[in-house]
Order: sequence, then C-alpha cells, then structure tokens
Amino acid sequence: MRDLYITVDQPELKDAGDLINQYCRTHVITMFAYCKIDYVGRAASLANYADRLILIKPDGTLIIHERDKREPINWQPPGTIINAVVDEDELIIKGIRKAPYELLTIRIPLVYTMTIMKVGTGDFKLWGSESELVERVIKNPNLIEEGFTPLEREYETPYGKIDLLGKDSSGRYVVLEFKRGQAQLQAVSQLKRYVDYMREKIGTDVRGCIVAPGITNNAYKLLKKHGFSYIKI
Amino acid sequence: MRDLYITVDQPELKDAGDLINQYCRTHVITMFAYCKIDYVGRAASLANYADRLILIKPDGTLIIHERDKREPINWQPPGTIINAVVDEDELIIKGIRKAPYELLTIRIPLVYTMTIMKVGTGDFKLWGSESELVERVIKNPNLIEEGFTPLEREYETPYGKIDLLGKDSSGRYVVLEFKRGQAQLQAVSQLKRYVDYMREKIGTDVRGCIVAPGITNNAYKLLKKHGFSYIKI
Repeated sequence: MRDLYITVDQPELKDAGDLINQYCRTHVITMFAYCKIDYVGRAASLANYADRLILIKPDGTLIIHERDKREPINWQPPGTIINAVVDEDELIIKGIRKAPYELLTIRIPLVYTMTIMKVGTGDFKLWGSESELVERVIKNPNLIEEGFTPLEREYETPYGKIDLLGKDSSGRYVVLEFKRGQAQLQAVSQLKRYVDYMREKIGTDVRGCIVAPGITNNAYKLLKKHGFSYIKI
Repeated sequence: MRDLYITVDQPELKDAGDLINQYCRTHVITMFAYCKIDYVGRAASLANYADRLILIKPDGTLIIHERDKREPINWQPPGTIINAVVDEDELIIKGIRKAPYELLTIRIPLVYTMTIMKVGTGDFKLWGSESELVERVIKNPNLIEEGFTPLEREYETPYGKIDLLGKDSSGRYVVLEFKRGQAQLQAVSQLKRYVDYMREKIGTDVRGCIVAPGITNNAYKLLKKHGFSYIKI
C-alpha cells in the first residue's frame, strides 16, 4: 500500500516543485500552503497571502480552496498546462490556458504538507435524473395527460435539444422541458425559446410544458404569462 | 508550525472517524480513501468503490473528487451536518441536509492518508467583473453611445436586478445587461424578461442592450430577433 501515495511534511520549496512537475500528469496532488493567487484572463483577480488548499488533477484541473464554501476561490479547468518553478524565496505554480488566454499564478513561500496519490474513477449510477424522468414519461405518457403521445427525445433546435417532443389528444405539438429539481426562471425562458422556434417551424400552435418536482413562484408566474403549463412529477 | 496541521498515514478506521468528528467544525480535512458513495435526495446516485479524495470544510461543505474534471463526483453545500461512525468493517461518513432532505453516505473500508489543517481566507480583489464594467460605463457613458445617460444601477424587477438602467439621447429607456465573459442565450432571455417588464411598467418602448466582451452566434441571432443590440466592451 505504501507505493500508492506519497505524503511529504514541510518539504523544501524546490522538492515540492519537483514533485509537482513529476506527478501532476499522473496523480492527484493536494497541498496545504501559505499562498497568494494572481489570475489574469477574462477578468483579473488577486487573492492575498493566506493558508489554502491547492488541488491538482492529472487532466490539468487546478483548484484552490479556502476555508468556506463549496466553490473554490480560484480554479482552472481540465486542459490547463501546469508547471512549478522556484523563484527567489517562493515556489510558483502556474496554470496556463491558451484559448482564451488565462494565467493563474500561485506564489507559495511556505508549504505545510502535500500528498500525491493515484486516484480512480468508479462506476456511477444516477436515478431521478432528467433523463430518467423522461424515460418514466415515455413508458407512462398518461403522467403528462390522457392521450399524450411521445414523439422524439432530444429534438434538436438552434437553441439546444428539446427534452421531449410529443402530441396531445387533439394533435397539437407539446414541447416538454424536464427539471429534476425546482424549475427556475431559466427553465421557463429555455422552454419559451423552444416553443417559439417550433411555432415558427411548424406554423401552427405549439404547447409548452415544464415537468419537474417543483417550480419557483416567479418561474410559475412567467410560465402562466406565456400560456405554458406545469406538471408536477 | 507543527501544531498547525495533522497528517495521519493509514489510520485505523475508528481513529479516522474520531478525528473527523473532532475537527470537522474547525478545520479543513482531506482524506484519500477507497470508498463507495450513496446519495439520496433530489435524485439518487451510487458511485462504486474506487480511490477518491474526500474534502470536508468547517462550514459543512462536503466534496468528493475523482481523478478527472473540475466538478466533484458528489458534494453537499455549506450547512450540511457531517458525522462519522464505524459500522462493522467500514468507516461511514454521513452528510445530512434537512430542507430539502438529502443524505450522502460515504462507505470507507480503507483510509490511505488524511490531513487536517486550519485553512484561512485572504483578501480577494476582482477586476473586470460585471460590477467593474458597470462602473466603467457610468464614468464614461459614451462607451454605450453618444448621449446615453445612466439612471440607476441594480434596478429591481420581479425577475432579478437590472445591471444598469439608462436613457438614450431621444429619451427612450435602455436596459443594459452586462456579462464579463461571452454572452450566452441565457443572457439574452434575461434581458428579454427585463425589457418586457419595463415595457409593461412604463407603457412606452424600451430598448435592450447586452454589454460584453463577446457573444455566441446563437445568442446574437436571438438578440437581433428581439430587436436588441450588442455593445462590445
């Protein structure tokens, strides 16, 4: 088991940098360090010196967490080119992206501890997802209403894919937008774009419907204003 | 410096659980472990046994990362009640939320290594943010067009706050929606909701305008369809 991971307490900056360069493309690296973060790209930001957690993944993901919150204070997505150098009295980790150009620079005068380990991926199954909700409706169309007939899943439009397109008992097209959580304003606007597109394309009236376990008050008001319906599932 | 953090290699399951219960409300905890994850809440998911990184924050954030991607495979937001127990041959970490009810269960037959440390928060400054773009326009309204007059920032509507409301040289109201990155379809629909609301409220025509460094093709087409304009900044 020893070979699986490396833990290094209070490494010299140079050793820490060498370990990053050696392992960052194969292992997950966590580092607790005192650091400052500069970011230049679509915006610019500066996070002053503090103790933080740095996380590097072999796909080029770079994440820096502070004490609170689910969201990291800074991050770069997969595909970022990561490298470490020691410059004067600081270890400098750079995360570079080309298009759009972004540069994240972490300056580290002090590394507390770092761990390097091969992390895996496991089978992942999800139930109650949007996709699973759509399947449930296809198997039992009466969940929508009597006489509803599903026609096509993932129907392509310039504005994205319609979750499910169907027809009601009177032959009118129905655009169904599924949400696995509470439907928000965004979901209603998305549905509006699909319905407008289908109305233009087909030249007849088209109904719009949100299928979700819940909906916010504002989203419901907007839904009614557009003449759409909501089905709780 | 020693007191600042604790690193434990291959802890007994009971010791690992005790450390979590003792430190999870004050320290950031990272743990590399072989684990399985059950989630029940707005959906249900199961991630089979694999080596993963578990991250616990003192505000109740619980994050589990696999090898790839910026997004964790499972997570619970701040405010989650976290506790650890040993049941038969597994360490079980539970993350519980009450409203809506959610339960994340991590089953761990083997802990490789864990680190416990007080992590901080540092001063954070952001430039080129939406807010900073709005300020730039207020100081220099001609960036929008000759004769443009800013009236009110963060103007409240039932659909959210309008970034900036102003008037053009002919006295017509202009709703400005700012994006610091490429404007997407969502931004156009958001703007549409604001403009529709203002038209109804004021009873006269209102212009809509996206201010951003870029815009996607589809968003631009929808923008033109609504008769809105785009200003590159």
